[in-house]
Amino acid sequence: MNIALKNPSLSGYEIPAYSPSGQECALFESAWLRQLPLLLKGPTGCGKTRFVAHMAAKLGLPLSTVSCHDDLAAADLTGRYLLKGGDTVWVDGPLTRAVREGGICYLDEIVEARKDVAVVLHPLTDDRRILPLERTGEVLEAPPGFMLVVSYNPGYQNLLKSLKPSTRQRFVAIEFDFLPRAREIAVVAEESGLDAARVAPLVDLAHRLRALKGHDLEEGVSTRLLVYCASLVDSGLSLRDAVIATMIEPLTDEPDVKAALIEVADAIVR
Amino acid sequence: MNIALKNPSLSGYEIPAYSPSGQECALFESAWLRQLPLLLKGPTGCGKTRFVAHMAAKLGLPLSTVSCHDDLAAADLTGRYLLKGGDTVWVDGPLTRAVREGGICYLDEIVEARKDVAVVLHPLTDDRRILPLERTGEVLEAPPGFMLVVSYNPGYQNLLKSLKPSTRQRFVAIEFDFLPRAREIAVVAEESGLDAARVAPLVDLAHRLRALKGHDLEEGVSTRLLVYCASLVDSGLSLRDAVIATMIEPLTDEPDVKAALIEVADAIVR
Amino acid sequence: MNIALKNPSLSGYEIPAYSPSGQECALFESAWLRQLPLLLKGPTGCGKTRFVAHMAAKLGLPLSTVSCHDDLAAADLTGRYLLKGGDTVWVDGPLTRAVREGGICYLDEIVEARKDVAVVLHPLTDDRRILPLERTGEVLEAPPGFMLVVSYNPGYQNLLKSLKPSTRQRFVAIEFDFLPRAREIAVVAEESGLDAARVAPLVDLAHRLRALKGHDLEEGVSTRLLVYCASLVDSGLSLRDAVIATMIEPLTDEPDVKAALIEVADAIVR
Amino acid sequence: MNIALKNPSLSGYEIPAYSPSGQECALFESAWLRQLPLLLKGPTGCGKTRFVAHMAAKLGLPLSTVSCHDDLAAADLTGRYLLKGGDTVWVDGPLTRAVREGGICYLDEIVEARKDVAVVLHPLTDDRRILPLERTGEVLEAPPGFMLVVSYNPGYQNLLKSLKPSTRQRFVAIEFDFLPRAREIAVVAEESGLDAARVAPLVDLAHRLRALKGHDLEEGVSTRLLVYCASLVDSGLSLRDAVIATMIEPLTDEPDVKAALIEVADAIVR
Amino acid sequence: MNIALKNPSLSGYEIPAYSPSGQECALFESAWLRQLPLLLKGPTGCGKTRFVAHMAAKLGLPLSTVSCHDDLAAADLTGRYLLKGGDTVWVDGPLTRAVREGGICYLDEIVEARKDVAVVLHPLTDDRRILPLERTGEVLEAPPGFMLVVSYNPGYQNLLKSLKPSTRQRFVAIEFDFLPRAREIAVVAEESGLDAARVAPLVDLAHRLRALKGHDLEEGVSTRLLVYCASLVDSGLSLRDAVIATMIEPLTDEPDVKAALIEVADAIVR
Amino acid sequence: MNIALKNPSLSGYEIPAYSPSGQECALFESAWLRQLPLLLKGPTGCGKTRFVAHMAAKLGLPLSTVSCHDDLAAADLTGRYLLKGGDTVWVDGPLTRAVREGGICYLDEIVEARKDVAVVLHPLTDDRRILPLERTGEVLEAPPGFMLVVSYNPGYQNLLKSLKPSTRQRFVAIEFDFLPRAREIAVVAEESGLDAARVAPLVDLAHRLRALKGHDLEEGVSTRLLVYCASLVDSGLSLRDAVIATMIEPLTDEPDVKAALIEVADAIVR
Repeated sequence: MNIALKNPSLSGYEIPAYSPSGQECALFESAWLRQLPLLLKGPTGCGKTRFVAHMAAKLGLPLSTVSCHDDLAAADLTGRYLLKGGDTVWVDGPLTRAVREGGICYLDEIVEARKDVAVVLHPLTDDRRILPLERTGEVLEAPPGFMLVVSYNPGYQNLLKSLKPSTRQRFVAIEFDFLPRAREIAVVAEESGLDAARVAPLVDLAHRLRALKGHDLEEGVSTRLLVYCASLVDSGLSLRDAVIATMIEPLTDEPDVKAALIEVADAIVR
Repeated sequence: MNIALKNPSLSGYEIPAYSPSGQECALFESAWLRQLPLLLKGPTGCGKTRFVAHMAAKLGLPLSTVSCHDDLAAADLTGRYLLKGGDTVWVDGPLTRAVREGGICYLDEIVEARKDVAVVLHPLTDDRRILPLERTGEVLEAPPGFMLVVSYNPGYQNLLKSLKPSTRQRFVAIEFDFLPRAREIAVVAEESGLDAARVAPLVDLAHRLRALKGHDLEEGVSTRLLVYCASLVDSGLSLRDAVIATMIEPLTDEPDVKAALIEVADAIVR
Repeated sequence: MNIALKNPSLSGYEIPAYSPSGQECALFESAWLRQLPLLLKGPTGCGKTRFVAHMAAKLGLPLSTVSCHDDLAAADLTGRYLLKGGDTVWVDGPLTRAVREGGICYLDEIVEARKDVAVVLHPLTDDRRILPLERTGEVLEAPPGFMLVVSYNPGYQNLLKSLKPSTRQRFVAIEFDFLPRAREIAVVAEESGLDAARVAPLVDLAHRLRALKGHDLEEGVSTRLLVYCASLVDSGLSLRDAVIATMIEPLTDEPDVKAALIEVADAIVR
Repeated sequence: MNIALKNPSLSGYEIPAYSPSGQECALFESAWLRQLPLLLKGPTGCGKTRFVAHMAAKLGLPLSTVSCHDDLAAADLTGRYLLKGGDTVWVDGPLTRAVREGGICYLDEIVEARKDVAVVLHPLTDDRRILPLERTGEVLEAPPGFMLVVSYNPGYQNLLKSLKPSTRQRFVAIEFDFLPRAREIAVVAEESGLDAARVAPLVDLAHRLRALKGHDLEEGVSTRLLVYCASLVDSGLSLRDAVIATMIEPLTDEPDVKAALIEVADAIVR
Repeated sequence: MNIALKNPSLSGYEIPAYSPSGQECALFESAWLRQLPLLLKGPTGCGKTRFVAHMAAKLGLPLSTVSCHDDLAAADLTGRYLLKGGDTVWVDGPLTRAVREGGICYLDEIVEARKDVAVVLHPLTDDRRILPLERTGEVLEAPPGFMLVVSYNPGYQNLLKSLKPSTRQRFVAIEFDFLPRAREIAVVAEESGLDAARVAPLVDLAHRLRALKGHDLEEGVSTRLLVYCASLVDSGLSLRDAVIATMIEPLTDEPDVKAALIEVADAIVR
Repeated sequence: MNIALKNPSLSGYEIPAYSPSGQECALFESAWLRQLPLLLKGPTGCGKTRFVAHMAAKLGLPLSTVSCHDDLAAADLTGRYLLKGGDTVWVDGPLTRAVREGGICYLDEIVEARKDVAVVLHPLTDDRRILPLERTGEVLEAPPGFMLVVSYNPGYQNLLKSLKPSTRQRFVAIEFDFLPRAREIAVVAEESGLDAARVAPLVDLAHRLRALKGHDLEEGVSTRLLVYCASLVDSGLSLRDAVIATMIEPLTDEPDVKAALIEVADAIVR
């Protein structure tokens, strides 16, 4: 995992830095080669979005990202009719554009979307690889250069929000986790500008806080928050103020939990 | 069941390969002959969609497939008024087109659709065989060449999502299941390009995992996932990586269940 | 009850065959004579729709049928404003057309409709016999030749879906049930083309399965499914395959129940 | 209470027959004189609607009736903008018309309407007697000749559907009940054409069935159903068939309850 | 409290009579002076609306009243786009008009409104005193002559319908209650025309019935109902008929409660 | 915290007074410098909105504030299509305008908004800093001068309304609380015009009432209410009337709680 300050989706000429932690790059390339759709699972801020940007740039493919949410419906992906000059004119959605033009369509946090979205993906994710547009009567055949990638955070999954087996079983799946200690120190140091020696105790604190996930905390500290913390320290804020503002306040509102976390932080970071 | 890489719904000139596992072809033809609607029941990825494509091609009938979902309403099937040049113009939906022109209209995962869809089918599925379009005042009589086929996965059925008896009792019904071992090995080998000897332990693993359905797993491994797995192996990925990415990660997010499945996999596939 | 292959609602020149099982024809005629609305109650596929078609033809009245569903609102019956050439133009719904022109308006499965539908019927079903169109400001007086008929299946009735007493008490009501054995054999033989001797055990099986309603089955086998079964046998399918496809699979998805039903079938039909 | 076959709301020249059972006519006139709004409470089919028609004709006032239902919103009463020739044009609803022109506006089953309806009535039912049209910015002052009458059936009242005290306390209220025996016999005989001697046991049966309300029956037999029953008998149907079709089937779907009611009927009517 | 027959909101030239029962007039004037928003709390029909009309007239301010209800949304207060001649044109809502032109905007029963209404009030009720119109991009600054007044009945407050602390704490609040005995007798006598001696026992009865609030009655008798009762008596109706129609039937539908209330009434009023 | 009577968002030339109670100003500037989004947590009326106005003026940045509510959807922030002259024209929402033009976009009470709002913020709050407009197909890159600030009151947070970890972990977070005694007295005196000696007991009372939060009171007295109270006293109202109208009535409707609070007030303020 590797968080660069450059915006990967807007600069087509350089490959966003990413150092693989397993076989995820080989798996992505195999899936791409065999035209299989991909599902990325993993916690908040562990680098899934960056990984997709990295692979898209490496394979020379355009990337279109959609952040899914409660009100995202199939029509937001496929397109809808708009009024123009008194007529209703069809306007492609991001998925339809990607199917027409090829490239990767990345649906982030797919379980958040309305259920009709998942099912719209079905004919695109079996051997037919087609996108039927019911409203226009078109049936688009995905070109070889089209790939569908979706992601979600299993930690949130519940009865109401999960992928149905009939949807999940259409994807090759990869699980992501946080980086090992040395790698995470290097990444945070590079991203924030703070030297590695001062980053190390912050990463140690993050490991301690991640171990509390499921007990006092809903989710552990992400690498992103570590970068925030080191950045604030680098820009002159006191270590303690930075830790509280980035590694404790964003995790909880409970006074008791917060006091316990500050105690943990004071013991590790000083 | 037989999964070909060609797209059956777009190439009218060849019949998608399908080797029947029972009387389903004879039943389909009898239903077609007597103008009776058909209901296909069975688990995810066992070949229902392929079967319909096969029979449509064999009988020389056009096929129109609709993937049903939570927000699919009757009007999405029958049609709706759109604004054109200041007027509202009626535009046929896929069901209306199929009734006007003949051929098979296949509604995949019918229980997902909104309830008004099921009831719109009623006058089409009794001896009247008519489609009344309330909004336009038309009453369409289905031609002899029209056939309605619907499918669903009984494993999902629950109190909120099921077909009412008054709808179910309008269909001749066929239940589908996975292929027997030898047949599934042959199909996966042919679809993936991997030789049968290397496919065999994957199929054995699938049988073991399917036996866990209802206990630790919501749904067993589909033939589709087996084809994915063999394809990734065929393209050079290690056997273990491929098995985890296609036969374990897509089935569960529970760390305990996942560990148990990997143990099962390690014992069978090596 | 009598299921003919001809479409009764489209051919005005012949009366759909129907042999009454009680005083239902006399009751219908009396209600028609005294301008009283009629409510038909009874299980799925027992012939309510056919009965209405028969009486309409017999009395020489046009018949307009509406299948009610969850999203059917009052405006679907009375009419709505549509955009035409920049203006909003009122378009009559099926109920309004029937009130203007006379004839029978038949609302099938009335309890499925949205509640505003039931109440729209109120001024039509008391001595006023008027249909106020709030949106246009019109008040239509039903002509003597107008009759309202509604139906529902009491087996489905629950707390959420039932007719309010203030609606029910506006109708003369008739209960329907399945035909006696000899009559049902004759009907199925005639409809399917299979000879009565081969139909008889199928009817016996249906009687056995109907007795299970409320225990293992939500609803018993309809006469329609019997006709399906005999038709498939008549077209060459094996008796057992036909029975499973039409009298067992459409009734249940439960493996245990299904096995028990097949045992019952094997004992009676061979 | 008195049910005539003539349509009171369409024929302005005769007063619909109504024989008062208490001080309801005097109360209505006093409320009218002092410009107070009126609330009528009572069971299904006991004559509330007829009473309003009678009083409107007696006082020489135009009458506008709205049957309330689940989807009736304030805008259905006050009016809404419609598109005409490219412009949005305001069209008055029935309440606004009544306020502009004077006369009685009768909202039947007010508790069924959406809650915004009740509150729209507030400024009309206190000493301001105004109807503010928020959408147009108008504030209409009700003329002395305007009167608001609403009704509901307390038997249905539940937590979800009831008038808030702040609404109820704006009305003078009258409770209605069924007619005493002799009066009901006379009314049914006159309405149906059947002679009083044959009507008497029907009324006796109705009294017995009304006593079961709250126990086995949700609502007792209305006078309207008695008129239906006598009408069918008068047109030649057997007494027992008519009783079942009008006084038992419309009341219940429960086989046990139905059997018990038939026993009661057989004991009283023969 | 004081209920006059004149319509205070339509006649700008006279001040609606109101005799204060505490410091409410001084409080209103202080809040007005310091540009603070005001919240009025109190039971149904105790004179909150009249109080606002009185103060508006006294301070020479235009008054705009909105009765809130379940479907009242922010856009109903701020304004919305309407189609005119093919364009969408912005039309101010009553709150926006009041902010533009100054004067009192009174939102009656604010807790009934949809929640977005309460939050739209926030920037108007802190020191910013602005109304941002998100849809048009305007930010209106309230002139010194603008004052916001809201009211609700705490008796209805429940978990679903209450003002959030972040909304409540933006208002100066006054609680209202019914008038003391002598004052209420005087007011009812003046409003109804009935002499005070005959009004006195009615007020005594009201006090008795108000004491039952929370036990058998959801809400006590309002002063408005007392005026209704005295008015009907004054126009010739018997005392008992008037009491039942105005002080008992509007309060309850329960036969037991009603019988008990009539007993109370018979003991006090005769 | 510091509440000025001038409107900070409308007068660009002066900096709204604000005296920091901790490192919040330094933290804000660091976050601004490193282009990190900011989350402000704290109780009602403790000065979060004022703090943002102060920092915006200090840094010379335009400020756009959106009060979030239950019906605020992503499209209210990003923009929507409107009809103009027969065409649909895209109109930017406040967030899109801020991204295009730079400056601070402040979303007040973010947890109140619909969930799609939170997720729309994701691509703006990671290293991409982009705002994809799905409906128009644009991808806006935030300029260095853009900063996103959100706030909420943890006291309201519940299961239904909270920020998901994947959203929270995208923000640097600061917690706010009420001012210490001496500082609050100074602020209230300055804001109201009442001298500090008379303000002191009011602040003491507020501290007492804040201690009851969570027991009898949902929320403690805000500094805003203290300013209201002192303002009313300054304009001549009696101390007790002012305290009841601003520090007791706005907090509770429970007669028991109110009586207890008045007792507390009478002991402290006299």
